[in-house]
Amino acid sequence: MSNYNIAVLAGDGIGPEVMQEAKKVLSVVEQKFNLTFTLNEFDVGGIAIDNHGKALPEATLKGCEDAQAILFGSIGGPKWDSLPLEERPERAALLALRGHFDLFSNLRPAKIYPGLESLSPLRADIAASGFDVLVVRELTSGIYFGQPKGIEGEGEEQFAYDTMRYSKKEIRRIAISAFEAAQKRGKKVTSVDKANVLVCSRLWREVTEEVAKDYPDVTLEHIYIDNATMQLLRYPGDFDVMLCSNLFGDIISDECAMITGSMGLLPSASINSENFGLYEPAGGSAPDIAGKGIANPIAQILSASMLLRFSLNLTDAADAIDAAVLKTLADGILTGELLSPENRDQAKSTSEVGDYIANII
Amino acid sequence: MSNYNIAVLAGDGIGPEVMQEAKKVLSVVEQKFNLTFTLNEFDVGGIAIDNHGKALPEATLKGCEDAQAILFGSIGGPKWDSLPLEERPERAALLALRGHFDLFSNLRPAKIYPGLESLSPLRADIAASGFDVLVVRELTSGIYFGQPKGIEGEGEEQFAYDTMRYSKKEIRRIAISAFEAAQKRGKKVTSVDKANVLVCSRLWREVTEEVAKDYPDVTLEHIYIDNATMQLLRYPGDFDVMLCSNLFGDIISDECAMITGSMGLLPSASINSENFGLYEPAGGSAPDIAGKGIANPIAQILSASMLLRFSLNLTDAADAIDAAVLKTLADGILTGELLSPENRDQAKSTSEVGDYIANII
Ligand SMILES: CC(C)[C@H](C(=O)O)[C@@H](O)C(=O)O
Ligand SMILES: CC(C)[C@H](C(=O)O)[C@@H](O)C(=O)O
Repeated sequence: MSNYNIAVLAGDGIGPEVMQEAKKVLSVVEQKFNLTFTLNEFDVGGIAIDNHGKALPEATLKGCEDAQAILFGSIGGPKWDSLPLEERPERAALLALRGHFDLFSNLRPAKIYPGLESLSPLRADIAASGFDVLVVRELTSGIYFGQPKGIEGEGEEQFAYDTMRYSKKEIRRIAISAFEAAQKRGKKVTSVDKANVLVCSRLWREVTEEVAKDYPDVTLEHIYIDNATMQLLRYPGDFDVMLCSNLFGDIISDECAMITGSMGLLPSASINSENFGLYEPAGGSAPDIAGKGIANPIAQILSASMLLRFSLNLTDAADAIDAAVLKTLADGILTGELLSPENRDQAKSTSEVGDYIANII
Repeated sequence: MSNYNIAVLAGDGIGPEVMQEAKKVLSVVEQKFNLTFTLNEFDVGGIAIDNHGKALPEATLKGCEDAQAILFGSIGGPKWDSLPLEERPERAALLALRGHFDLFSNLRPAKIYPGLESLSPLRADIAASGFDVLVVRELTSGIYFGQPKGIEGEGEEQFAYDTMRYSKKEIRRIAISAFEAAQKRGKKVTSVDKANVLVCSRLWREVTEEVAKDYPDVTLEHIYIDNATMQLLRYPGDFDVMLCSNLFGDIISDECAMITGSMGLLPSASINSENFGLYEPAGGSAPDIAGKGIANPIAQILSASMLLRFSLNLTDAADAIDAAVLKTLADGILTGELLSPENRDQAKSTSEVGDYIANII
């Protein structure tokens, strides 16, 4: 019987209640597949600021280092928004974890599930043509981390600056992630850049073309970021894997999430070259609905499934969770935000959805 | 009788044929309002490369310097795409003109016209809630022009870098443009940034807040770029003026253009502090439909109207053009791309639309 060590960081807002359901599902998976998951829980984000004075306490970081993967909830909320930027949950915990573990490969799948087309903000005929995209975003370089970054000068001449920076090595490893993923999907990579303006984008294009040569079965296209935000709205079905730098991936992945109209269903993975990873829902901590038992636990449950698949290599267990989620949606076991206003009285609670998925497995 | 000197740069693709219609409209305006427009035509873009060896010949630049405003068509096409980046029409002509004349304030209105809601790629109920946004984009600074920019090192360690840079002065003048515009519209400015990551965005927020104090009747909101791309799809009616840096404005203005579903209707203005400006359609040169007489001339005609309004201060004449365009759309005088496939046999040609608008004036 194999034993796996997972650090569980539920965080703020709806984090703890959706994490509860992910743990429920993991425990069923343990029985069914004869595995043992040792789940060690740690404070992170706002709750960690409240309890320990900082968003990423040493004990939490140590717990993550000792684990094989991190199952992350969500962090932040109005209570901590007035803190100096560097101390706020998002930067002090999330960006810090990405940097510390070199989680350079961010996978953000976004798809319109069968039967949920009407949630998409896109026109019915466009949504009906299908949407199933994997955004592969570089997560530890680019303008987020590039140096120098700062502010200089006085008066009206005072100026701020940030540096966008990419090495060939950094571009190559994320491009490889994208091509590997495309081989298992629709065999198409659309690389998003601004090569008509940015030197970084020109190097990005050059290296991406080089990597493409090793994947003759995968088609590579290049698109400018401004055009990408447009074509996604008009021809969403044309995309498969979208390869993006850190900043462009932040924008494109959020646009893709919104195109599905069901953010509460979308997981994400942030992985390093040893397959260690942090897995979290794509949505935020949603403080407005926290504690009400109405949040959708599926993004958190699918994050657990991605964790099993990518960091623990437990493909069968991950497949079982994914299939159970699909069936749950097909059976119409939905939290309120997925229902039209007329049908909202049929909404299931967070734990009812978790139970249903656990039962199927 | 007042005489105005306008440089006309029709460019490539559909540029010349839609420019023809804008000139037709300007000539009617001359008669009706007792004005004289001296229109001096110059080559720009691909045609200038073919005729003079470069995208922005000296004579063209000189002609622009001698004029009170530039009416620009569109440039570029497959024929010139294989040139080195620095020589291509977009950079060598468009970015060069923006820089040369310090055209820092880019105004890109995007709205869903009454009766044309079904062209929007957004869901019918969302499109019905209305969309009328003015993107105010900073156009001569930021990561487009920031120094240093380059490529260094060898092998896999070779790296590229671009610098995003904004001074208080640069932020202040574009913020003022946005607040001035908002006062004449919906009295709301939504400033788009990434202040949780970029130092430039923090300075952007600080200066924008300062400027807001001088416009107590205008509401200021801040939104992260990633969230902005999402909210535009779900709540497009919530936005009035969107204030953006150069790169974010490039992305947001194209997303807004696509939301209208009618790019052929959208003009844009790029203005400096003396109200000298370059006016051009938001769409591209559309080489695939060039020469067929089917391109929509309205974006070009509305660009001429913006030119009269902003650079020549001819408000009545501009109002007359805008009203004529509105009536033309309301009367259903439409080029093919605005019609559903079933009705496409009712499509009017480029010159028929131009004639109709000219007649109304
Ligand atoms: C919170 C923020 C710094 C973060 C980012 O921009 O990466 C978020 O938007 C995300 O995409 O995970
Ligand atoms: C052609 C390109 C350099 C340009 C830009 O990015 O500014 C275009 O996309 C625009 O928005 O006018």
